[in-house]
Amino acid sequence: MNQNIDTEDFTKKVILPYERQANYYETDQMGVIHHSNYIRWFEEARVDYLEKIGLGYDKMEAMGILSPVLGITCEYKSSVKFYDKVIIVPMITYFNGLKMTISYTIIDVLTNQIRTTGESKHCFVNKDFKPINMKKHYKDVYDILAHWTN
Amino acid sequence: MNQNIDTEDFTKKVILPYERQANYYETDQMGVIHHSNYIRWFEEARVDYLEKIGLGYDKMEAMGILSPVLGITCEYKSSVKFYDKVIIVPMITYFNGLKMTISYTIIDVLTNQIRTTGESKHCFVNKDFKPINMKKHYKDVYDILAHWTN
Amino acid sequence: MNQNIDTEDFTKKVILPYERQANYYETDQMGVIHHSNYIRWFEEARVDYLEKIGLGYDKMEAMGILSPVLGITCEYKSSVKFYDKVIIVPMITYFNGLKMTISYTIIDVLTNQIRTTGESKHCFVNKDFKPINMKKHYKDVYDILAHWTN
Amino acid sequence: MNQNIDTEDFTKKVILPYERQANYYETDQMGVIHHSNYIRWFEEARVDYLEKIGLGYDKMEAMGILSPVLGITCEYKSSVKFYDKVIIVPMITYFNGLKMTISYTIIDVLTNQIRTTGESKHCFVNKDFKPINMKKHYKDVYDILAHWTN
Repeated sequence: MNQNIDTEDFTKKVILPYERQANYYETDQMGVIHHSNYIRWFEEARVDYLEKIGLGYDKMEAMGILSPVLGITCEYKSSVKFYDKVIIVPMITYFNGLKMTISYTIIDVLTNQIRTTGESKHCFVNKDFKPINMKKHYKDVYDILAHWTN
Repeated sequence: MNQNIDTEDFTKKVILPYERQANYYETDQMGVIHHSNYIRWFEEARVDYLEKIGLGYDKMEAMGILSPVLGITCEYKSSVKFYDKVIIVPMITYFNGLKMTISYTIIDVLTNQIRTTGESKHCFVNKDFKPINMKKHYKDVYDILAHWTN
Repeated sequence: MNQNIDTEDFTKKVILPYERQANYYETDQMGVIHHSNYIRWFEEARVDYLEKIGLGYDKMEAMGILSPVLGITCEYKSSVKFYDKVIIVPMITYFNGLKMTISYTIIDVLTNQIRTTGESKHCFVNKDFKPINMKKHYKDVYDILAHWTN
Repeated sequence: MNQNIDTEDFTKKVILPYERQANYYETDQMGVIHHSNYIRWFEEARVDYLEKIGLGYDKMEAMGILSPVLGITCEYKSSVKFYDKVIIVPMITYFNGLKMTISYTIIDVLTNQIRTTGESKHCFVNKDFKPINMKKHYKDVYDILAHWTN
């Protein structure tokens, strides 16, 4: 391996897309996926992403770590229709051990057009909903999240 | 009170309808309310009905009584559209202290046409999901449910 | 009319809240309303609000005006639980005839605590999804929306 | 191969399961998947199944064939939890060219336990919601559905 290449930085650039087909029950009478569903797709992609980087929900739950949603933004660029296949690309854009921001890009598999972009903001709490300082109390998890932050 | 009238029987005939307007996000691309939503409307009507007969969710929960759904049936007669107002009429059709069946009729407010009929079957369990014999352990609740059974 | 009082300004301050009880099927396993549902509650409140100011969905549809959602933001301050009653207060915060922003505040009826705030951005299109200039083509609707913009 | 065996019959026995992981937003405050969601999972499995046997939604829509749901039944045997993987096995149990019944069995991937069983009943209509006689007007589609009926 070439020693001039910072491999950690390369790793960070790896995207971990989540593939998803639009369901019939997610459409609305305008003939497109109802806008509220993208918030749910973000969650699916987030769960999948965290599992892929070694922080599966079961593992986090066993450690007693919850990461409730503090806020959501979503911008609708173009419509997804029933039966369309999309990939959702999550990326951790901010993490300081107390709070985390994840961004999402929903892309049509066939056309490569961006359908929706958005963001979710999170904190970390224990089962009594008390804030957790991840760096102090869960250094292993902290390191993984810090590593994947772009 | 006229002794010839069986007032208890009269009370039983009283219906306790729940009014509901169809939401935009409940439509699908056929331009009608997606069929899965009626199951949710049944639940809304059931919660409302139980509260009206004195068995509000908070009260039942405080007593530690849960009534999970064992089965559902639903027949779609005609479509509900966005913005339509309907009433949902629940009725307890079976109750023996261990199990209960509630039927539902969804009726369009404007036309009086029946849109959907259905049924949910329930048992009674405590917080550890152990079956409860209502007659034995919750005689007051038993009496109310028995009274309202048609 | 007292000439010192700007009655139009008074009218603008009138809020048109929409009351709503949280449904069981809207809860998640954390025991609170799942965050995606507030986006749907915003929509319910928006439909109700527009109807109250004379722009009911049926009327708008008959005129061929659609107002798709361009973007959503939502901030979760505190949790709504099953059975809680809330009011949702929508307010038009921006309108220029081409685009419109509506803000929402979800308030617990019992405690008056703010649960969630958010915003939806809209444009106006005809049935062929072509942008509409409201001032030019629907002066009556334009006037109502302009009047209610705070 | 034993010539006494009717190979077509063997083909019929082939199951076409649809795999699905339970989403967080599908849970309710009892900590399990809310019972209304299984109706949606049935739909996902049905769409997937019809596509696999050569009757994808796009193809059917292009031919102008819709198959609205006339009725649903669902029996809840045991709970699915967030993160559980299940397979849903659809099977056409009745088809006469005018109506069709599909049954569903939801099975936990890890334990092989049956979680839910159910059924959906359908008719066939054209875009004007007029009933279609499949044998008469869409013999190719009729033959496929008849072949897969158990």
